[in-house]
Amino acid sequence: MSPLLPNHLAGRWQAGNGPGTPLTDPVLGTELVRVDAGGLDLDAGFAYARDEGGAALRALTYRQRAALLSEIVKVLQKHRDAYYEIATANSGTVRNDSAVDIDGAIFTLGHYARLGDSLGDARWLQDGDAARLSKEPAFLSQHLSVPTRGVALFVNAFNFPAWGLWEKAGPALLSGVPVIAKPATATAWLAQRMVQDVIDAGVLPPGALSIVCGSAAGLMDALEPFDVVSFTGSADTAGIIRSHPAVVRRSVRTNIEADSLNAALLLPGASPGDASFDLLVREVVREMTVKSGQKCTAIRRILVPQALYDAAAEAIGAGLRAVTVGNPRNPSVRMGSLVSRSQREAVEDGIRALRQEAALLHDGASHDLIDADPAVSACVGPTLLGVREPSEASQVHDIEVFGPVATLMAYRSLDDGLALVRRGQGSLVTSVHGADAAALAHAAVELASSHGRVHVVSPDVGASHTGHGNVMPMSLHGGPGRAGGGEELGGIRALAFYHRRTAVQAGAAVLGALSGA
Amino acid sequence: MSPLLPNHLAGRWQAGNGPGTPLTDPVLGTELVRVDAGGLDLDAGFAYARDEGGAALRALTYRQRAALLSEIVKVLQKHRDAYYEIATANSGTVRNDSAVDIDGAIFTLGHYARLGDSLGDARWLQDGDAARLSKEPAFLSQHLSVPTRGVALFVNAFNFPAWGLWEKAGPALLSGVPVIAKPATATAWLAQRMVQDVIDAGVLPPGALSIVCGSAAGLMDALEPFDVVSFTGSADTAGIIRSHPAVVRRSVRTNIEADSLNAALLLPGASPGDASFDLLVREVVREMTVKSGQKCTAIRRILVPQALYDAAAEAIGAGLRAVTVGNPRNPSVRMGSLVSRSQREAVEDGIRALRQEAALLHDGASHDLIDADPAVSACVGPTLLGVREPSEASQVHDIEVFGPVATLMAYRSLDDGLALVRRGQGSLVTSVHGADAAALAHAAVELASSHGRVHVVSPDVGASHTGHGNVMPMSLHGGPGRAGGGEELGGIRALAFYHRRTAVQAGAAVLGALSGA
Repeated sequence: MSPLLPNHLAGRWQAGNGPGTPLTDPVLGTELVRVDAGGLDLDAGFAYARDEGGAALRALTYRQRAALLSEIVKVLQKHRDAYYEIATANSGTVRNDSAVDIDGAIFTLGHYARLGDSLGDARWLQDGDAARLSKEPAFLSQHLSVPTRGVALFVNAFNFPAWGLWEKAGPALLSGVPVIAKPATATAWLAQRMVQDVIDAGVLPPGALSIVCGSAAGLMDALEPFDVVSFTGSADTAGIIRSHPAVVRRSVRTNIEADSLNAALLLPGASPGDASFDLLVREVVREMTVKSGQKCTAIRRILVPQALYDAAAEAIGAGLRAVTVGNPRNPSVRMGSLVSRSQREAVEDGIRALRQEAALLHDGASHDLIDADPAVSACVGPTLLGVREPSEASQVHDIEVFGPVATLMAYRSLDDGLALVRRGQGSLVTSVHGADAAALAHAAVELASSHGRVHVVSPDVGASHTGHGNVMPMSLHGGPGRAGGGEELGGIRALAFYHRRTAVQAGAAVLGALSGA
Repeated sequence: MSPLLPNHLAGRWQAGNGPGTPLTDPVLGTELVRVDAGGLDLDAGFAYARDEGGAALRALTYRQRAALLSEIVKVLQKHRDAYYEIATANSGTVRNDSAVDIDGAIFTLGHYARLGDSLGDARWLQDGDAARLSKEPAFLSQHLSVPTRGVALFVNAFNFPAWGLWEKAGPALLSGVPVIAKPATATAWLAQRMVQDVIDAGVLPPGALSIVCGSAAGLMDALEPFDVVSFTGSADTAGIIRSHPAVVRRSVRTNIEADSLNAALLLPGASPGDASFDLLVREVVREMTVKSGQKCTAIRRILVPQALYDAAAEAIGAGLRAVTVGNPRNPSVRMGSLVSRSQREAVEDGIRALRQEAALLHDGASHDLIDADPAVSACVGPTLLGVREPSEASQVHDIEVFGPVATLMAYRSLDDGLALVRRGQGSLVTSVHGADAAALAHAAVELASSHGRVHVVSPDVGASHTGHGNVMPMSLHGGPGRAGGGEELGGIRALAFYHRRTAVQAGAAVLGALSGA
C-alpha cells in the first residue's frame, strides 16, 4: 500500500484511522499516496486553532504577520522542485501548467506579504473617517475592522491544490485568523506537502495552520458563529455548505466560488487577421488548453460578430490542432492530462450534452496522445464547439464542461452580444477584445454587474496584458449569481472577509485613545 | 368588514383575492384594516420592477436619485400627522415612540439624500485606485462598484414599519435598485400608507417601489441571481430565507438581521451615584421602555461589577417604577403597548423561561395599566431580572425577550465581563460605560469583533451621546453570529449591498475612457 499522509490538527500530526483513499497518477494510473480523516476529534482541533492559533496570530501586528507570510514564501521556494514533481505525478500537468499553481501561489503570498507590511504595526484597521453624530460636545462614529475571533475553514477544489490554498491562507493569516484547509481529495498531496513543510519549518504559531485530507464529513458541524468558511468547487457542494446549520442557524460567513460560464467577447469592428482578432484567437487557444481547461476562469463561450464566425472557427481550430497532448513528462507535450478518469468522463458527458445544440468545429478526439495510453490516462484533446444562433440555445450557457472545451457563438448586435454574455447568470470573468477605447470602456461597464472581473484586451496591451484566466492578487476574484457570489483577493479587499466591521460611537477623547490600541 | 389595503405591484394597485388578514389595535382590540396578497402574479411583478423600475433608476445619476429621496421626504413630511395616527392605532405606541419610527425614517432618508447628492453626476462608483498589473505598456486593474441589475426584496419586522422600510429603501433607491417591500403583517398599515402616498405623488419612476402586504408565500421563489433580499426578524424565519433555493442555488445576496442579546457594560471603577453609574441607569431604563423594549437594539443584559449589583438593581428598579404604562392616547402614559396579544404572550413566556435562572428584581405586573383593559390590551409593565452568577447561566444569554425586559448581571473582573458580553454569540450593539478614556477604548476594541456597533458613554458625552439603541444612519447596523451577520447603513457603506464590485483590467487608454462612462 502507498504511504498514508497524516493530517495536521490540534497542533500535531494525526493519521486517520480508516483504510485511506488512494490518490493516483492520472496519466499512468498508478497509486501514489493515501489520505484519511477518520477518527479525528474535529471539535478539539477547531477549538485548538481558535484558541491557540487565533490568540497567537491576533497578538501580532499586520507587519509581523506579513513577515510570517514571507517566511512561508521562503519555505515554499526551498522545496519548489518537490512540488513540481508532485504536480506532474498527481495532477498530470506540464511544467508551465504546474507553474500557474505553484509559482502562482508563491507570487500571491509574496504580494500579501508586501501588502501586509505596508499596514504597519497595527492589530486592526481603521475603516473610513470619523463621522459626527452630534454637535458640542462632539459625539462621533468611527468604523473599525478587527480580525474575527474564529477559524477560517477552506474547502478547496482539485484544480489548484497550491494556489487555491495559499490565495486564501495568505489573506487569512495576514488578518490574524487561523486556517484549517481541506484540499480536494484527488490532488490533496501537494497541499499536504506544502503544509507539512511550513509546519516542519516552525515559522507559524501552533494552531495557525491545520490540514485535514480525505472526507469533509463533520467539518461544517465544527463551525461556530465567528468562524468563516470559504469554498471553491461545484454548485452542488456549494448548496450543501450554504444550507448547513452552521450557515443557516449560526450565521457562519461564507465565500463561495462555484460554476462559471466565462466568455470572451470580440466587439464589432474587428476583421479576420487584424490585431484584435488575432489577440482573441491566441487568448482563446491558450485559455482552453492551460491546465487542460481545468480553470474556473477559463473561457467557455466565445462571442464574435456573425460575419466573423467562420473565420474565428477556422483560426481557433488551427491553433488547437497544433496543441500536443499526452504525458507531461515528454518535453514535446504542451497539454497534459485531466486530473482523473472520472473528470475525463464528466468532460466527455459534457461535450455530448452540448452537442445537442452545438456543431463540432474541432474534435479533441483527433489528437493522438503522446506517451499516454488512452485506456489508462485521463488525457483528452481540446474540443471547439459552435452555435450560430446562441440566443435560441440554452445548454451552452448553462453547462460548464471543466476541460479543454469551449463553444464559439455568433451575435447580431452589440446589445445582443452583451445579453448573450449575461446569459451566464453571473460569471467570474469576461474578456472584451477590440481596438476602440471608448467602446471597450462602455462594454466593460455594461458587463461589470454580472462579473467579478472584466478583462479588456486592446492591441496596445497585446503583449503586456496578464491573461483572461490568470487571477492576479490585485484584482477581485469571484462573481455573482451562478459563480457563487463570492469575493476573494482584490488586494487589501481580501482582508474584509476575515475581519468584522464595527462602528465605535464615542466622544473624541475615547476615539483618540483608540488609535493607540 | 374593515377596508382591504391594496398591494402595489407591476406598476399598479392590486387587491388580493383572499379573505384578508385583519390588523388590530393592540390597546383596544378593535379591527383596523385588512391585508391580502392572494392571487398576485409575483413573477410578473418582479419582472416589471427589474425591467422597468431598474432600467429607469439606473439611467439616473446618484445626484438625480438623491433628489428622488428628497422628494420622498417631502411627501412623508406632508402626511406626517396621518402616520402618527396610524402608529397610535396599529402599534400602540406613545408619541415619542412613534417618532423613533416615523421621524427616524424621514431623518435617515434625508441623510441618504444628502449623501447621494455628494456622489454627483455618476452612475457607478470607483472603488479604490488603479493598481498596476504589468510594466510598459501599462496594464492596470481598476475596481468599480456598479448597481446590481435586479430587485431588492425587503422582508421587514413589525416593530419599525416606517423606519424599517426607508432605512433599506433609501440606500437601495439611491443605488439604482428597485424595491419590493413586504412589511410584517401586524403593522403593515403604516408602511402601506407611506408607499401609497409616495406612489400617488408620482415622484418615482414606475416599478421603482412596490409593496406586498400579507403572506410572504412565493416572494423568495420570484428571486433571480442578481436580486438581493434583506430580512429583519426572527432567527427562525432567517433560517427559512437562508435555506431557500434562491439563496442556496441562485446565490441571491442576503442581508439578515435576527436576534440579538445586546448588553450594557459598566466598567470597573464606577461607584453608586457617580456620573458613569447614573448614565448607565438612565440609559438602561430608557432602552428597556422605549417602544416597550420592542427594538432589536434594546439592552437585554446589564453587566456591572459585583460590588455594584445591589445598587444597580435598586437604581434601575426605581427608574422603572416611575414608568407609567397603558393607552398611548392618555398623555400621562409614558410607555404604550406591545404590538399584539401574541407578542405579550411571547414576552410572558420569555420572562418565565428566564426566571428559571434569574431573580425578579422589578416586577412588570406591579404596574397598573392606565386606560387599558388587561384582558384586552397587549400592554405590559417593565420587568428587571437579575443573575448574580451569570457565568453559570445560559438562558439569560440566549433568550431574547422582545419587550420591556432585561437581566442585570454581576461580573468579577473586566475579562469576565467582556467574556459575558460575548456570550451573546454576536450582537447588534453593546454599550460601554465608564470615565477612563483608555479603558473605554480598550473595551471597545475587545468587543468590536462580536458586535456591529459599540456605543461608548463617558460623562463628557453624557448629554450629547445618541443613545445605545438609536440607529444612526452614519453607523453600521447589524451584527455577526446570532445577530444574523448583516450590515446595513454606515453611511455610504450601505450602498455596497446593492452594488456589485468588479475589477476592470485594461490599458490606461481604456481606463481613461471609463471615467466618462
